[in-house]
Parts: sequence; structure tokens; C-alpha cells
Amino acid sequence: MAGGAENVFKILVATDNHVGYLEKDQIRGTDSLEAFEEVLRIAQERQVDFILLGGDLFHDNRPSRQVLTRTMELLRHYCMGERPCPIEFRSDQTLNFRHSRFPVVNYEDPNYNVSIPVFSIHGNHDDPAGAGNLSPVDILSVANLINYFGKSANVESIEVSPLLLQKGTTRLALYGLGSCRDERLHRMMRRKNVTFLRPEGEGEGEEGAADWFSLLVLHQNRAKHGEKNHIPENFIPAFFDLVIWGHEHECRIDAEYSVVGSDADGEEEGVFISQPGSSVATSLSEGETRKKHVGILYVKGTSFKLEPVALECVRPFVMDTVFLSQTGIHHREEQQITAYLTQKVQAMVDEANADNPQGKLPLVRLRVEYSGEYETFSNARFGQRFVTEVANPRSILLWFRQRKSVRKKDE
Amino acid sequence: MAGGAENVFKILVATDNHVGYLEKDQIRGTDSLEAFEEVLRIAQERQVDFILLGGDLFHDNRPSRQVLTRTMELLRHYCMGERPCPIEFRSDQTLNFRHSRFPVVNYEDPNYNVSIPVFSIHGNHDDPAGAGNLSPVDILSVANLINYFGKSANVESIEVSPLLLQKGTTRLALYGLGSCRDERLHRMMRRKNVTFLRPEGEGEGEEGAADWFSLLVLHQNRAKHGEKNHIPENFIPAFFDLVIWGHEHECRIDAEYSVVGSDADGEEEGVFISQPGSSVATSLSEGETRKKHVGILYVKGTSFKLEPVALECVRPFVMDTVFLSQTGIHHREEQQITAYLTQKVQAMVDEANADNPQGKLPLVRLRVEYSGEYETFSNARFGQRFVTEVANPRSILLWFRQRKSVRKKDE
Ligand SMILES: [Mn+2]
Ligand SMILES: [Mn+2]
Ligand SMILES: [Mn+2]
Ligand SMILES: [Mn+2]
Repeated sequence: MAGGAENVFKILVATDNHVGYLEKDQIRGTDSLEAFEEVLRIAQERQVDFILLGGDLFHDNRPSRQVLTRTMELLRHYCMGERPCPIEFRSDQTLNFRHSRFPVVNYEDPNYNVSIPVFSIHGNHDDPAGAGNLSPVDILSVANLINYFGKSANVESIEVSPLLLQKGTTRLALYGLGSCRDERLHRMMRRKNVTFLRPEGEGEGEEGAADWFSLLVLHQNRAKHGEKNHIPENFIPAFFDLVIWGHEHECRIDAEYSVVGSDADGEEEGVFISQPGSSVATSLSEGETRKKHVGILYVKGTSFKLEPVALECVRPFVMDTVFLSQTGIHHREEQQITAYLTQKVQAMVDEANADNPQGKLPLVRLRVEYSGEYETFSNARFGQRFVTEVANPRSILLWFRQRKSVRKKDE
Repeated sequence: MAGGAENVFKILVATDNHVGYLEKDQIRGTDSLEAFEEVLRIAQERQVDFILLGGDLFHDNRPSRQVLTRTMELLRHYCMGERPCPIEFRSDQTLNFRHSRFPVVNYEDPNYNVSIPVFSIHGNHDDPAGAGNLSPVDILSVANLINYFGKSANVESIEVSPLLLQKGTTRLALYGLGSCRDERLHRMMRRKNVTFLRPEGEGEGEEGAADWFSLLVLHQNRAKHGEKNHIPENFIPAFFDLVIWGHEHECRIDAEYSVVGSDADGEEEGVFISQPGSSVATSLSEGETRKKHVGILYVKGTSFKLEPVALECVRPFVMDTVFLSQTGIHHREEQQITAYLTQKVQAMVDEANADNPQGKLPLVRLRVEYSGEYETFSNARFGQRFVTEVANPRSILLWFRQRKSVRKKDE
């Protein structure tokens, strides 16, 4: 990415901050806020042009008063300021922000000094609901702390008007698609009822539109959970240069190339997809064990580079699986089983602490396969010996029985 | 109030806006918001220096998302702006706003343009509660839309540090006492555990403090509801020049002189008390029938003038009382009774509409004394004939029996 910085967009991308997650937990209560603060601190330190969030900023659709004010305090502290934002806003803001009573990008409102604008769509956790069809993100929007976009009122079809942003010679068309039910969006996209409007460039028609770097942010299932309750990657139009995929909590921030179709000449066409993942683990599952990152996205002309930045404040999380039937311990020997699992968990704690500069109690999850005649026992009791060593003493063990394979079933 | 405007404070005083009251009512749902908007519009039109609110801005301690965002929209629309606020803030803001993460008066924050600062205490409806001891007013405060003061953490004693404001040669010491349980404040004041700190002036000690106009805003019972669950007027220190009394919904905005004690020479001492009253009727009681007003308070040196300004958008409210025993109608003649009450209510509707420039459906309340052998009947059924004529068809009649007098009881 050579060339003057004046032509390069520098954007912090993050998603699924789930602020307020487990807010009443004595140990983990402020994890989500700390991670969100780290995201904002990175944006400030790296002097990005703006922050792009992919939804689920709030964990609860009705955040507690404390979570709401704390979030507003953080945004005010890190994002308000006298350093001017160098981004020229070129599209019709009354269209981009038509759901708002103040349809103006926050850094252009003459009554506010915004140094780091935040652009965000909503996720399924903070989607519009109730009287007035408001999202908790609307509260941040009316406080001029966030530019909430991608809010669509229509349930039959959606026309997405991009935010057209320019920095020097680089032009960025930013498309937002706030979370909606996967089945509904799947059907709308299949029926071609989702229209992504294209900007005009120097050239004519499609050629002109190609002057713009097209960036889409959405918040939907990416993994297949059944035929229709996810968005297949090949539903994404090929003109997009990059997609920021929210909702999936596993960090796969390095942009992956995905073939979505072929052009008129039969040439393969594809888009890059980056999945930043959540900044806090909201489930003790495999995907959440991956190291958490945000990205610094550089866009120059129609090229981009995505630099992952690890979140340092995130609590370590180690996960493993044991099969009791493979331990050689008899199912009646509960003491031996407990001793074995205790030893195993202690080793996981040690593993977590081997790379734990902040010294936070780690999350530890041991999946225990107990088919045969083994019996489960209380997580609460087992966890007591780890109350000073792990952040989740009451949910260390996950008992499961492996499903018999289809072949066996047929037998 | 002669003399240059540059030395005269011009303050809009209002209280008990109860935004969100009956928000789900099809007819009255937006009354509270409309009245609050009128208050702000008056402040803007009259170009006041600031707005002073006496608590119960919100009706619900946890306002709905729609009410919260609508309130923020109104404050942002009317109070943000480039006209600079001419008030010099002279006291230690970290002390005045010590409960806030941004302990700075909103018009001095360099990232915001505020043209009409709002200062508010909390009432009993919007008092601090829950984790973090936050009031819904704190949300407006962190959005920099309101200067929330008079929040006290201590339950045993309170030290009130005034906001010291100066305009030209006039000095204003503004004391705020957020709502707390009447019994508790009563006890604290009786025991001299409420200290009102005095500023220093040109002269020495008390003499110097007298250079300042001392204004107190509080939100407590003024009417006696028993020995200890109100604040007797003579609990107010005599050095106060004016008290803005919130919580009481009846408009008694014209300042009344109240003797609170006598000085060292035996001379009577007193304070002026203004009770602006609510901007929306939240009960169909006598006090709420009084025409609603806000005040424009002028302060020059240590003199003041309070100009009442009627709220034009407020729904007319007419109340009356009938004694069935005095109608001459036999208690069995339910049809005649109904006809009599219908005629009576119709006359009240006509009376309300005689002065109803906005054409809003009026509130009508008829108290019906039914001692003797009379029987009550359904308000819902009775109200049906007035659904297109009154705003409260389901609560027109209030049946009551007059208590026998004490003398009779003794008999
Ligand atoms: Mn999520
Ligand atoms: Mn989600
Ligand atoms: Mn009230
Ligand atoms: Mn009250």
C-alpha cells in the first residue's frame, strides 16, 4: 500500500462487541466493556479515519442503564475531539440516514466535534423493536455518538444506498445491511429483491461504478444451519471488493477469497470476506477459543490490505475434550474419574496462564464424553476447587455423549 | 428590572414534565412530549440564558426507548446551537458534577456547541436507582444534553455546593437538592445535617455571601401529608432569595413570601417560593385543573422578577362536584340520574371548549357524592357517549362518599 496517506482510507473494523454480556457476573461482568474500550483505544492510537462496526454492539436489546451510559461514556471519551475527520461525504445523507431525525453524518453536524466517526449496522441482539421500531443503537445515534446505517423498513424488498466516502483520490462505497431473519433475507436475495445501488464514477455505467471500492457489512449466519437460515456466500454480488461479515463470533479476520459466480466470459468471479469475530466470548465453544482480533483496513483506489490487531485484554480461553471410555478408568471409580478430570483441567489452566500477560483468570471448558456406563456429576461441586483459578468455575465441564454414527444406526 | 440585559440573568424555570406519561394512550399519548417541546420552544423564542428544571422530567424511572430518544431529539434540536451561552461558571465543576464522568458544564465542553444549557435535579420519578446508582437523567448528562446536579450519595448528611454563575455584575448561587424520601430529608434538616455552603463575595463572611443571589431548587412534598413526610417551609434557611419548588403539580408559579424565622434582632425573615407545577396533568385532581405555566425568571443583583408564561398546548381540564342527595332525584331512578350527570358533563365539555384554541379533546372529571341509598354505575358505559368529546371517556366520573365529620363521629 505505497503512496501518500492522504489517498488511503484507514478504517478500524470490528464486530459483535456484545457490550453488557454477563454484566452481573462478579468476575466477567466488565469483560465486554473492557474489550470495547480496547477497540476504541486502538482506533485512537492508530488514528484511523473511522470505525466500522458489524452489529451486536449491545448484548441485550434493552441494555441496562449502566451499560448504556458506560458505552456512551466510552464513545464520548474516545471519539469526540478536535482532530478533524478527513473523509468527504458525497452521497445524499437524507437517504443514507433516512430513519433518523438528524440525517447527517455526525462529524458534519456543526454543533459537535467528532474526531473518530463510528459507523454501525445493527445485529440481531440490538435490532429495532417495539414502539417506533427503535434499536438501542438509535439512542447512540440521537446522542450523535454513532452513525447508524443499514436500517431498512421494508420486509419485502430492500434497496441499499451506499454511503459514498472519498479520501483524496480513493472512493469508497459503503453498503450496510442490518441484521434480519436469515430465512427472510435468504428469500429476498434469492428472488433478487435486494438491490445494491451503484454510484456513478468517471467512466460510464458499470465501468464508472468500478472506480469505487465497494465494501459491504452485514450481520447474518454465514455457516450453514440448514438450507435457508444462512446467507450463502455466492449470494453476494461479485462487484463487492470486500465483505465484513458480522454475527459469526469466530475470528477469521484474514480476508478469504470466495468464488461467487462467473462473468459473461465464463471467468470466475469472487469477493473477499473478512469475519472479524466477536471481541468477547459469549459461548464456551470452539470458535470462541480463537484469539480475538480487530482489523485495520487500508483502502487505496480499489486495493485493500487488512492488518489484524490482537485484543490484549481478552481473557484466555482454553478448550479440550476427553473420552472417559479411553481413560481406562472403571465407571464405578468416581474418585479416580474426578482426580483425572481435575488433573486435566489444572493442565489447561497452566496452558492458559502460559500466555496470560494481563493475569486474568482464564475461561476453561473441558468437554467430557461419557458414553458407556459413566455417570455425570455436578459442575458446581467440581468447580469449587477452581474458584480462584478460572473465571467460569460453575461451567468447566460439558458432559456429552457422542452420537452413534449413521452407519451404526443403520446396522 | 431596569438596566442593561448584560447584567440580568434570564432563566426559564419549569418542573415535572413527566415525559412519557400515558405514552400508550391513543389520545393523550404525546401530551407530555408536546408540553415539554413547548417549554423548550419558549426557551428558544425568549432567548433565555438557561433552563432550570425541578425534577420528574421523566415519568418512568426506566423510560421506554421511544420516550428516551424523543426527549433526546428535542433537547438536541432546541438546545444545541452556535449562539454562545453568556454565563460564566465560577465554581469548581469537579465538585458540582462530581457524580459525572465528564464533570464539566455542557456549554464549556469544547466538543459541543450548546446554546441553551439545561440544569436539572432529579425527582422521585427519575431518581437514581439500580447498578451504578444512575438516574435516567444521567443518560441525558452523558449525552451532554443536560447538566444534572443536586445528586447526593450520602444518606446521613448532605453538603450542597452551589453552582456559582455570573452574568455581568450579577452573581447567582444555584443550589440543587435532588428528590429524596421526605421523612429522610425532614430528619436530616431537623438535625441540621443539610449544609448549604456559602460562596465568598466582595465583603467578608456572611456579608460577602450576600453579594450572591441564592436560588434553591428542590423536589419534595410541600403540602403537609403528616408530620414528617413533607418539608416545612420554615426549614428553608432564610438566606435564600428564591426557592423553586418541584414535585407539587399545582401551578403556583407567582412567588409567595413565606416567613421562615427571625433574625438576631427579632426581625421576621422569609424566602420567596415559586411552585411552577407540572406541564402535564398526571392526575385528575383539583390542583391539576389550574392553568399550566412556566416562568421566565429575571435576576439582577439580588432582585428578581418572575414572569409566568402560559403553556398553550396543554389539554383543557375541567372538574366539578355534584351531590346526588341534593338533586332531588330518587335513588331508584337510575335513568334520571344518568340523564342528569350526562347533562352536567356536557356542560363541562362546553365550558372546556369555550377556551380551547387548539381544539384538543378536554379532560373532564365529575366527582359524584352518592351517600344515602344511591348506587354507583360503570364509568366505561357512561363514558361511551363522550368518546368523541373528551380525552378521558373511561374516567369521567369519580364516585365518592363524604366522610362523616369528626363531630358526628364523637356523637
Ligand atoms: Mn453476536
Ligand atoms: Mn448476531
Ligand atoms: Mn411530579
Ligand atoms: Mn415528584
